[in-house]
Amino acid sequence: MATRTAKGAETRLRIIRAAADLFHKQGVAATSPDQVIAASGTGKSQFYHYFGSKEGLVHEVLQTWLEAVRGGTYPADPAIESWRDLEQWFRAHAKWQKRFQMTRGCPLGTIGNGLTADDELVRQDLTLIFEVMRNKLAAFFIREKAAGRLAAAASEQALADFCLATVEGAMLMGRIGRSSALVDSTIDEALAHLRSYVPSP
Amino acid sequence: MATRTAKGAETRLRIIRAAADLFHKQGVAATSPDQVIAASGTGKSQFYHYFGSKEGLVHEVLQTWLEAVRGGTYPADPAIESWRDLEQWFRAHAKWQKRFQMTRGCPLGTIGNGLTADDELVRQDLTLIFEVMRNKLAAFFIREKAAGRLAAAASEQALADFCLATVEGAMLMGRIGRSSALVDSTIDEALAHLRSYVPSP
Repeated sequence: MATRTAKGAETRLRIIRAAADLFHKQGVAATSPDQVIAASGTGKSQFYHYFGSKEGLVHEVLQTWLEAVRGGTYPADPAIESWRDLEQWFRAHAKWQKRFQMTRGCPLGTIGNGLTADDELVRQDLTLIFEVMRNKLAAFFIREKAAGRLAAAASEQALADFCLATVEGAMLMGRIGRSSALVDSTIDEALAHLRSYVPSP
Repeated sequence: MATRTAKGAETRLRIIRAAADLFHKQGVAATSPDQVIAASGTGKSQFYHYFGSKEGLVHEVLQTWLEAVRGGTYPADPAIESWRDLEQWFRAHAKWQKRFQMTRGCPLGTIGNGLTADDELVRQDLTLIFEVMRNKLAAFFIREKAAGRLAAAASEQALADFCLATVEGAMLMGRIGRSSALVDSTIDEALAHLRSYVPSP
């Protein structure tokens, strides 16, 4: 029984991983259950047993991303302790994209841009993931401001939103233009802006 | 014969408009030729006569957006003469999104985020559209720099890319979070950064 459960958990995870990869590559709408089943080397009955539907699967993929963001295993960990960490967080997105020869954008942004009015559960999943990211980023700006190392006029939440939006936009434009230089230069400008809030000594 | 041609052109345009709206609303992958035919009130034979396939239709929709960007009829015209125009260009995106109750992103970004490795023609169409936008935006920064009103260290192309990436990212995040405040605050930060290149008098 224990073996069976462990095996089941492994099958479930294999399907989630294959789906996450396909969604990242081609979006949710272009991905069929059959493609996920083939890519994961599992069966139709297993797919429907664990996820019920494609919508159920998208939800579970996003729950897995949420766990990764919360647990610090997301490829671009938004737990920031220093300006160096913040720069690394930005650059991690660019590196991630280069690993796919600039053919993919952000896995979360790709799902977000394919949302329709019917995908309210998926939209809420994404909203929650970005909320967790935003709070982690904002915590850095809050600490810096409390220590007098960030201009009092800066809005910590707005800066966190700015980080997320520029990263998402840079990855999208980088993917369309297949250009990592474009991503790098947008990150440079974003960092210059954020650093402008550091008071001169 | 003239009537027939004019009628044909009108049918073709009706299909393009209905498709552009559906692609904006739900992306390309989720849109079937049948949906476009129903939404445009045309017929299957007309659809295939004018466009051959869905891929052909996506290409024609993007050609229409390209014409709009070139001709100055795009809803956010990137022909910028002043800082006020630049702010209006940014805000026009936010307004456009509000008209759809934040349920849609940028029509071009939405198509871009749904790209797969097979969509090389569509990717090139988008790259060309963004190239035209980038050059129009960069022309403003080039003129400002030539007139000594922009820091010599500023890269006009990088600033133009930064404008496009922040707008795309802001619209994507605004759509996911159904929040226009988020879009506005990201635009505020982006404008503050761009204005930091204006030398103090």
